Amino acid sequence: MPQPMEFWFTAGSTYTYLTVNRLEAAAADAGVAFSMRPFNLGLLFREAGYWPFPEGAAKTAYMWRDIARRAARQGLQPRLPAPYPAPDVALANRIALVMIAEGRGMEWLKSSYREWFENGHAPGTDTAVERGLRALGADPAAVLARANAPETQAAFDAATAEARRLGVFGSPMLRVREELFWGDDRLEDALAEARRD
Amino acid sequence: MPQPMEFWFTAGSTYTYLTVNRLEAAAADAGVAFSMRPFNLGLLFREAGYWPFPEGAAKTAYMWRDIARRAARQGLQPRLPAPYPAPDVALANRIALVMIAEGRGMEWLKSSYREWFENGHAPGTDTAVERGLRALGADPAAVLARANAPETQAAFDAATAEARRLGVFGSPMLRVREELFWGDDRLEDALAEARRD
Repeated sequence: MPQPMEFWFTAGSTYTYLTVNRLEAAAADAGVAFSMRPFNLGLLFREAGYWPFPEGAAKTAYMWRDIARRAARQGLQPRLPAPYPAPDVALANRIALVMIAEGRGMEWLKSSYREWFENGHAPGTDTAVERGLRALGADPAAVLARANAPETQAAFDAATAEARRLGVFGSPMLRVREELFWGDDRLEDALAEARRD
Repeated sequence: MPQPMEFWFTAGSTYTYLTVNRLEAAAADAGVAFSMRPFNLGLLFREAGYWPFPEGAAKTAYMWRDIARRAARQGLQPRLPAPYPAPDVALANRIALVMIAEGRGMEWLKSSYREWFENGHAPGTDTAVERGLRALGADPAAVLARANAPETQAAFDAATAEARRLGVFGSPMLRVREELFWGDDRLEDALAEARRD
């Protein structure tokens, strides 16, 4: 019986786009169940005095090129570079918490990335939220009310504290047993770890 | 006929250990010729106000664990964490320039990593230089004299300026045509690019 896998993420991560578009199929093929764990990675970056992709940096230009190449392999055709960084990623992540509770977490996350990487609406913006939720047949006002409720904020803060405690420092981060696997490149390693006897 | 590949590196990079121990075989299998391009990545980091693996950071702990897992797959058994960061990486890189000119660049780089990751002597330290060169039958005093000569320093500075111009911002960085591939994880992609018609 494979071990379960935790999928820690922020909806504002660029590379997580690649994972979101292949995670369900890869996990199903491996027979591995995964849980979705949104957290406030931006807060952890601010605490560390660090930002991974500064505007104008060579690393940032490379990141977009690298994602474009790998997306093409997956048959995806994103419009890159997408708006970055996104202004209110925490809202997109709290919406994820609401949708996960309804069993629609991956649907939301894929919809959010579709708005961002294909339609040019950064996660957490009014347009991205409205369009991303309506595409799922969800009521934006009702979902927003829950996403902005104190209990959702508290759950999000608790998840971020847990990420900090577990040493989760990036997105996507896959966790199996006590092992962390960072980045879309490590998805197969994480699934193999879950299947290891 | 495959395109040539440039292997940009600093001898002070941790992940480059993985590449150094598999690059020659992988490139030979692919029929791809590569050139070695040491540069002063530490200087580029300082210019960017950035350090990838701060002491005590979760990302740094992860880096060592990730390298240990991947080294084990390659049949390598490094003693990790190795001393980090190394105090005089630029010297190890200038020695690389000298040894490359003698056709022994990969021999030196592997010897430097062996001292660092297996024997605990950080690159550029007196012990690592002395032992790493003697292991190759080279005369440390003679090599050091050349590595510290103004023309070697100038060549190293020129390589770093070229890296900056090309958008090379990390190590290992593989360059084929105008495409950059960052990290040991991208070695196969770089070789495929070199073989693409």
